[in-house]
Amino acid sequence: MIEIRRRGLMLVLSSPSGAGKTTLSRLLLETDSGIVMSVSATTRPKRPNEIEGRDYFFVTPDAFGRMIAGGEFLEYAGVFDFQYGTPKKPVMEALAAGRDVLFDIDWQGTQQLKERVREDLVSVFILPPSHAELERRLRTRAQDSDEVVSRRMSKAADEISHWPEYDYVIVNDDVGRAHAKIVSILEAERARRARLVGVSEFAAALTR
Amino acid sequence: MIEIRRRGLMLVLSSPSGAGKTTLSRLLLETDSGIVMSVSATTRPKRPNEIEGRDYFFVTPDAFGRMIAGGEFLEYAGVFDFQYGTPKKPVMEALAAGRDVLFDIDWQGTQQLKERVREDLVSVFILPPSHAELERRLRTRAQDSDEVVSRRMSKAADEISHWPEYDYVIVNDDVGRAHAKIVSILEAERARRARLVGVSEFAAALTR
Repeated sequence: MIEIRRRGLMLVLSSPSGAGKTTLSRLLLETDSGIVMSVSATTRPKRPNEIEGRDYFFVTPDAFGRMIAGGEFLEYAGVFDFQYGTPKKPVMEALAAGRDVLFDIDWQGTQQLKERVREDLVSVFILPPSHAELERRLRTRAQDSDEVVSRRMSKAADEISHWPEYDYVIVNDDVGRAHAKIVSILEAERARRARLVGVSEFAAALTR
Repeated sequence: MIEIRRRGLMLVLSSPSGAGKTTLSRLLLETDSGIVMSVSATTRPKRPNEIEGRDYFFVTPDAFGRMIAGGEFLEYAGVFDFQYGTPKKPVMEALAAGRDVLFDIDWQGTQQLKERVREDLVSVFILPPSHAELERRLRTRAQDSDEVVSRRMSKAADEISHWPEYDYVIVNDDVGRAHAKIVSILEAERARRARLVGVSEFAAALTR
C-alpha cells in the first residue's frame, strides 16, 4: 500500500522573557510524542535549577569558539555577555528519524535558521497579555537582580519588535488556550501540501 | 484595552465526490460557531433530500445567466450539464461581520476564488483512503444511475489531479481524525500573522 509521508519540520517558539514560552514548550513536548526539543549550547553559567543536556549544553567560551569554527552550529548569537547556539547534528538526526524539532530561540537565531531551512521552518511568536503582566513575570524571578530585570525589560522590548518576522502570532493570555493554538499550528503544518512526500503516487493509485 | 483582531478567512474544502467532504463540512459547521457555509447557486434540479437555501439556491438557467451578467458571483463554473456559482453578497456580509466562510467547491471554483482573494483563502484537498473505498462510496448512492457513477469516477480522477494546487492535503481514512485536522488548520490559520490586525499597537503598548 502506498503511504503519504512528510518531511520533518522545525517549530520555532520565540517570545520575550516572561511571556510563558518555557511552560508552553514543556507542555507541547509532554502532549506530542512526535516532536523533540533542540537543546542549545551556551557559555552562560548554569543556574541551580538547570540540568546539563536538558536545559542547555553548558560549554566554555573556548569550546563554543571551536564549535563555531567546526561548523557545528545551525545558528548562534551573542546575548548580553554570553553566546548561545544550536548544535546541528542532533537536529538533523531527529529530522532524519521522521521527528519534528522544537526550538526555543530568539529572533536572531530564527533569522539565521530561516536562511538555511526556509521551507521546513515554522515560526511562532508568543506575546504576553499586557504590560503589567510582563513586568510582573520578569520581577518574580527571585534569582535575578534589579539590573538584570531592567535589562530584561529592555531586551523584551527589542525582542517584541521582531514579531512581524514570524509566521504566527499568539497572545498568551491563558496557557491552556495558547497551548491548544500551538498544537493546532503543529497539526496544520504537518498537513501542508508542500511538506508531503508521495502524494502523486497515492493519488495515481486512487484512480488507476 | 488594545485588542488584536483578524480578517475573516475563506476555507475551501475540495475533493472528488465520495471522499466524505459533505460529512466533514457538516461536522465543522457543528463544532465551530465562527464559520458559516457559503451556499452555492445551481441550475441542477433539486434532489429529494436537499433543501433550498441550505444545500443550494436552485435557480433556472436564465436566472443564473442574469446573476453572471450582474457580477453577482465570486466564482462560477459548469460541471456536466449544470452550472454552479458562489453568490458574492452573503460571503462579503459574513466576512464583514467577523466570520469565516466555508466553501464546498471544486478545483475550478477554487482557482477563480484564489485569483480574487489570494491572501484570505485557505484551501484543503481531501483524498479518499483508497481506490476500493472511493468506488464503494460512489456506488452506494442509490439514486444515481450506472452512467452517472461512471461519469463521477472519471470526474473524480480529474478532480484528484488538482491536489497540487491546494495549501493542505488530508486523507480521509477516519472521519474523526480528518475532522480534527480541518479544525487544526482553521485554528492555525486564524493565528497567522499576516491575517492579524492591530498587533503593532498591541506590541507597542506592551513595552511603552
